[in-house]
Amino acid sequence: MDYFYRMNALEHLRITFLDHLKNRITENEPAGLYDPVHYILSLGGKRIRPLLTMMSAKMYGAPVNDSLDAAVAVEVFHNFTLLHDDIMDAADLRRGQETVHKKWDLNTGILSGDAMLIMAYRLFEGYNKEQFFQLHKVFSKTALEVCEGQQYDVDFETRDDVTVPEYLNMIKLKTSVLVGCALQMGAIIAGVKEEEQQLIYNYGIHLGLAFQLMDDYLDAFGDPATFGKEVGGDIRENKKTYLYLRSIENEDCATELKEWFALDHEEMNEDQIEEKKEIVKVFFEASGGAAATLDAIKFYTDEALSIIETLSISDDSKNELKKFSLDLMSRVS
Amino acid sequence: MDYFYRMNALEHLRITFLDHLKNRITENEPAGLYDPVHYILSLGGKRIRPLLTMMSAKMYGAPVNDSLDAAVAVEVFHNFTLLHDDIMDAADLRRGQETVHKKWDLNTGILSGDAMLIMAYRLFEGYNKEQFFQLHKVFSKTALEVCEGQQYDVDFETRDDVTVPEYLNMIKLKTSVLVGCALQMGAIIAGVKEEEQQLIYNYGIHLGLAFQLMDDYLDAFGDPATFGKEVGGDIRENKKTYLYLRSIENEDCATELKEWFALDHEEMNEDQIEEKKEIVKVFFEASGGAAATLDAIKFYTDEALSIIETLSISDDSKNELKKFSLDLMSRVS
Repeated sequence: MDYFYRMNALEHLRITFLDHLKNRITENEPAGLYDPVHYILSLGGKRIRPLLTMMSAKMYGAPVNDSLDAAVAVEVFHNFTLLHDDIMDAADLRRGQETVHKKWDLNTGILSGDAMLIMAYRLFEGYNKEQFFQLHKVFSKTALEVCEGQQYDVDFETRDDVTVPEYLNMIKLKTSVLVGCALQMGAIIAGVKEEEQQLIYNYGIHLGLAFQLMDDYLDAFGDPATFGKEVGGDIRENKKTYLYLRSIENEDCATELKEWFALDHEEMNEDQIEEKKEIVKVFFEASGGAAATLDAIKFYTDEALSIIETLSISDDSKNELKKFSLDLMSRVS
Repeated sequence: MDYFYRMNALEHLRITFLDHLKNRITENEPAGLYDPVHYILSLGGKRIRPLLTMMSAKMYGAPVNDSLDAAVAVEVFHNFTLLHDDIMDAADLRRGQETVHKKWDLNTGILSGDAMLIMAYRLFEGYNKEQFFQLHKVFSKTALEVCEGQQYDVDFETRDDVTVPEYLNMIKLKTSVLVGCALQMGAIIAGVKEEEQQLIYNYGIHLGLAFQLMDDYLDAFGDPATFGKEVGGDIRENKKTYLYLRSIENEDCATELKEWFALDHEEMNEDQIEEKKEIVKVFFEASGGAAATLDAIKFYTDEALSIIETLSISDDSKNELKKFSLDLMSRVS
């Protein structure tokens, strides 16, 4: 017990969550369908979304235990999107381990993913009918928006005229709405009224946007020693991130940057790719794009923090949520 | 109006359904996500499942209009399974038209399918909270069972020791539970009690089993002029259907049948495949497998008909449902 008292509250929540995840996802036959589900759920990750559901429920006065099924639902859904996205991106690795479609095969990846989406929905069945209805509704709306975000992301790959507002809308759909949904689900479980639910949802939207923009920034400027993925992976693959879109707004840099982003990494050796990364990063800084990205991260983080002030939660909870937001934004991976 | 009065009741229901399908599925942006959804839903088909939802609701006394959203949900879900199954089967054609992953690409097939599953769930949101909860529950349970059935089907492809009970369980999961679910949803909408819901669900399970066994039978013995698919397609692909499994129970035929089912169609020309089909069909008849399959179809149809007798619906409705069942079993495609 001493150990738990010394841990910070977040670690305690994470352990509670992981325990419930293990006990709640017990389907196992046919193994070909469910083994990949257990596999991807065991790969780890920060578990930010389920933690937000639990924190939100707790701050609004619900017992944390009441939020666990919804927390598992949001994590199962998130991992469903990772599973199908990895197929679409032809990714071999996820968190340093083989992706499902690589370890098994394409058909397994599709079908086990489908099962996970349904399993996520079933996790709401233990709630009372009013909560159930509200949880189902925000979850379904969010899930469809995540699909729309993924489609826009795919569409943008072959478009040269993506605007900054379009990009922001895409990452809002692909990432932020699920963060907002996770938080709103905690509020629903605590039985708070609709307007308050919207406030915490909006906090999540802004936090999610700041988080994704930080991801774009760290991809180029993260520390290779601590960044979980390949630094410069987006540059290698010519991904038109916020960092890129804001950099090409500077006409002095646009032409050269666009030329670098027209090069196919499959026709380059690793030395050439390293050189490209270094040069592009210089352009990102010289153009003002990097500074603009940091400004945007600060803007959305500040917005998130100011929404916290308006929430009907205790001052202690506000401080906890602020600390969580700032920790997330000072992350290095 | 005269036209409607002359139509039979089922055609009337079908037109009502198709009208609602068109008006209810209106999402269209991003087009890359939703165009394939509209495409596959427009390919036609008998629409048996949604008709069963509507018939069930009507027979239990609910206005047909109340059942339309659930009917669309079951059809959208069914088409989601077809979309993802076509990818897994690498099928180029669906109802004589290009499959989604062929007309667009793999990623589109996966993502648009995912969206359809979510869209199906959202269609329940217009029901009152009690109905909503019950609809969600039977739908989710069924949807996961359908995934399990698909997985068993995949597993059976590489197994030589599939038993008849295992096969029956697989087709029950893959096909029958959705028929049962469609009927139960109508009963839920009409507000009948749980025990009665189970009766009509069980009618659907037996009807679905008879239907799928008829599919197995017609694949070999259907009339090429009226059968919608390639007659003998299962024989070409060595599918271990009920017909095959019952035929190899006859030891005089088992060895030779197994030899024919060890031949790879990709290493045969069309004349050889035609010859194989003819010989295998002779074995199916000589072994008693064909007769056993017809017996099983009759058994499950009779079971379905006898369950109809126990339902709390009017005699007219019972007769209508019996006629529907028998028409389905005397189909030629």
